[in-house]
Amino acid sequence: MEPVSLPPQSRVALCGGTHGNEMSGVYLVRELQKLEKVGSATLTTVISNPRAVQMCKRYTDVDLNRCFTDAILSSPVTDATPYEVRRAQELNTLLGPKGSAGAMDLVCDLHNTTANMGLSLISYSAQDWVILHIYRQIQRKITSAPVRFILLDLPLADAYSQDSLGKHGFSIEVGPQPHGVVRADIFNIMKEAVDQTLDWVQCFNSGSAFEGGEVDDVYTFVKSIDYPRDPETNQITAAIHPQLQDRDFCLLHPGDPMFLMFSGEIVKYEGVEVLHPYFVNECAYYEKSIAFHLARKMTLTIPPLRVKRD
Amino acid sequence: MEPVSLPPQSRVALCGGTHGNEMSGVYLVRELQKLEKVGSATLTTVISNPRAVQMCKRYTDVDLNRCFTDAILSSPVTDATPYEVRRAQELNTLLGPKGSAGAMDLVCDLHNTTANMGLSLISYSAQDWVILHIYRQIQRKITSAPVRFILLDLPLADAYSQDSLGKHGFSIEVGPQPHGVVRADIFNIMKEAVDQTLDWVQCFNSGSAFEGGEVDDVYTFVKSIDYPRDPETNQITAAIHPQLQDRDFCLLHPGDPMFLMFSGEIVKYEGVEVLHPYFVNECAYYEKSIAFHLARKMTLTIPPLRVKRD
Repeated sequence: MEPVSLPPQSRVALCGGTHGNEMSGVYLVRELQKLEKVGSATLTTVISNPRAVQMCKRYTDVDLNRCFTDAILSSPVTDATPYEVRRAQELNTLLGPKGSAGAMDLVCDLHNTTANMGLSLISYSAQDWVILHIYRQIQRKITSAPVRFILLDLPLADAYSQDSLGKHGFSIEVGPQPHGVVRADIFNIMKEAVDQTLDWVQCFNSGSAFEGGEVDDVYTFVKSIDYPRDPETNQITAAIHPQLQDRDFCLLHPGDPMFLMFSGEIVKYEGVEVLHPYFVNECAYYEKSIAFHLARKMTLTIPPLRVKRD
Repeated sequence: MEPVSLPPQSRVALCGGTHGNEMSGVYLVRELQKLEKVGSATLTTVISNPRAVQMCKRYTDVDLNRCFTDAILSSPVTDATPYEVRRAQELNTLLGPKGSAGAMDLVCDLHNTTANMGLSLISYSAQDWVILHIYRQIQRKITSAPVRFILLDLPLADAYSQDSLGKHGFSIEVGPQPHGVVRADIFNIMKEAVDQTLDWVQCFNSGSAFEGGEVDDVYTFVKSIDYPRDPETNQITAAIHPQLQDRDFCLLHPGDPMFLMFSGEIVKYEGVEVLHPYFVNECAYYEKSIAFHLARKMTLTIPPLRVKRD
């Protein structure tokens, strides 16, 4: 592929506490607040949902990390507007406006999951060379956890998460860690990923050339699977089967066990396509009726990249 | 020791959801609600804090499992009385009254922890032969997790947890499991413990004789350790050190690492006595300023036991 030149990443935002009970990002952002500048980039650190952090809850009214669509960001504010919608509009002013020339060059939002997902980068475009080069550096440099890329195939207007405010943006998702808890091992993996991101930005801005080539372990969303439920009460009647629990990104074949009913029976996967489960038994997805997502694995090719000189 | 005869355990209560986000007990009690009688015993199943279960929170106003002292159970109810205090008094009517002849013979309360504690029984007396014989059966029969006994040395009037409502009572604590999540492996360990408890009751009531002898892996509380905190903001400044995380009930020696500061330094254990940490990094104890408890290990001796015939 042809080499590509892009402008420097001068204004970088690192955000934690978008979900107020995902503690690694909260504590890491508080540490990073002691910095002001990282080499050639100006660093903005944000506790995204301070009310939820204060209460150690995912959110107060609605899930903040679903509030960054164009529709919600431009909705009129009334007395009935949920706190998180107002906060999303504030963050859009601070880090965006989304899609504008004034937006942050790079927004990185820090998350935890109760699923055994290791370290995942989540972003919206298969053609954002900045994000994919950062991912490749993180994957090459970090050996303490598996590193993967989750591609959400949505147009920018419908992109719902906070990282979509930047010209480039991604979430860092690290697990397993119970919500409301901080584990040193998970904190350290997240810190390594942030350090590698800032290192990449510094090298890029300084003029380093990055080789093109293949990008592995990219996963695209196919569909979600809910827990079995009682048809009358809607209550869950099964747990993730032990053969699937903690096996995020492994292959799920037709006939493989998915759920163990509380009464003892096994529920098997009846799909026809071999797919990769992820966000398996994520705490916050119970209320969203999601036991896990299923993904297809792919490889992307990216061009050589360097900074555009003025 | 001299053999002991005790009355049959005719009225047994199994309680879940005392903490509304500890899911194994909630789902297990819902399964058990399909039973009515277990051999010779009448089974009462209780979702202890239905409001908290509904919200998937530990509690709504105050921690229900600290509300079963004589003082709180006899406190007058006003408009300002927290929900959980009123609920504790209801439960005292249903399962107690605490300390009375009308109380349940056996109360078993089901809990989860985010700590890597395996299966623990928690109770108040080193001389409750019923509980200690049940513990010994569970320890002998269950091999899927380590099994231990935590002895809280308090007089009945000050015993604060729900299991203290019964003539005999204990909590079953299983982990690690994130709050708000149900894992099949943890659910199955709890179910095994309940099945063994009910099996023991059935054998005891039917006239089986139980041998006396030594009871191992009994732990008594010594003291609690808090996380390092910023003296101005009171915010936590460290996580449990990776060498201590998930090592519940292992030995902590003077000089062993306890905490890893977010800034990178190590905080070591400076006590003089070698002790056993437990409830290491329990989610719900952050607000109680407890990073972990420390215990001393002991062995108890119990007498042979059988049912007293009328």
